[in-house]
Amino acid sequence: MKARIAMVGAFVLVASAAQAQFQKPEDAVKYRQGSLFVMGQHFSRIGAMANGRVPFDAGAVQANAATVEYISRLPWAGFHANTKDVKSKAKSNVWTEGDKFSAAADKMMAEVKKLNEAAGSGQMEVVKAAFGSTAASCKACHDNFRE
Amino acid sequence: MKARIAMVGAFVLVASAAQAQFQKPEDAVKYRQGSLFVMGQHFSRIGAMANGRVPFDAGAVQANAATVEYISRLPWAGFHANTKDVKSKAKSNVWTEGDKFSAAADKMMAEVKKLNEAAGSGQMEVVKAAFGSTAASCKACHDNFRE
Repeated sequence: MKARIAMVGAFVLVASAAQAQFQKPEDAVKYRQGSLFVMGQHFSRIGAMANGRVPFDAGAVQANAATVEYISRLPWAGFHANTKDVKSKAKSNVWTEGDKFSAAADKMMAEVKKLNEAAGSGQMEVVKAAFGSTAASCKACHDNFRE
Repeated sequence: MKARIAMVGAFVLVASAAQAQFQKPEDAVKYRQGSLFVMGQHFSRIGAMANGRVPFDAGAVQANAATVEYISRLPWAGFHANTKDVKSKAKSNVWTEGDKFSAAADKMMAEVKKLNEAAGSGQMEVVKAAFGSTAASCKACHDNFRE
């Protein structure tokens, strides 16, 4: 719910809040790219364990999942309408289909929350299932909104 | 203390943990740059209020300070020794004077923790003082370790 509010904030309260948040559009792009990249790194560490490439470590899964959930709330403010013309991988439908993009971001945040809860179980199979659902939500958004 | 452990982890447990953390040195650099940039954006929003450029908003200060503190623990793992030859603004003494760099990072994290506590006071003068000390710790590290 909190995440939903943050999303709505990013898209609706644009004129005041988001303008003030970034000094220039390029900063907003760098911010969203940076936060998504950092989140992706932590997410992929869970993936390496979920997929058996590295030994399962319940503590590491928990630490990474907590960071993924924390950072998952951040990038959206960077998709400000005034960044439309800044070169990035974002497709223009991020802004022309704002509701869909917002829903996709919301879906990812909901999956990430579940992943963090699954991490608390300390069980690889539970983590693996939640990782899969979360990865699907990342992919869905990338397929639709990223070049 | 937790932060200290994370720092030591970043510098000592390099062979196993950090190698596994990043697929390639470039990712480690991107990770540290991304996390420092995101942190800097949230930090500068507090600065804008501390310096009177935008109206003081206790809730916004708290939200930003919490994020700054959370992210302040992340960048250090990206300063892995195997990133020495990757082009970045990091000076070589990050690695030749690892203890000093570690201490500077530790200082920043301690100041950020105090800033987050100050944010809880809801008082502009308290936040302003803590912001100043934190900014000084950022600058000290940049002056010594960044081109």
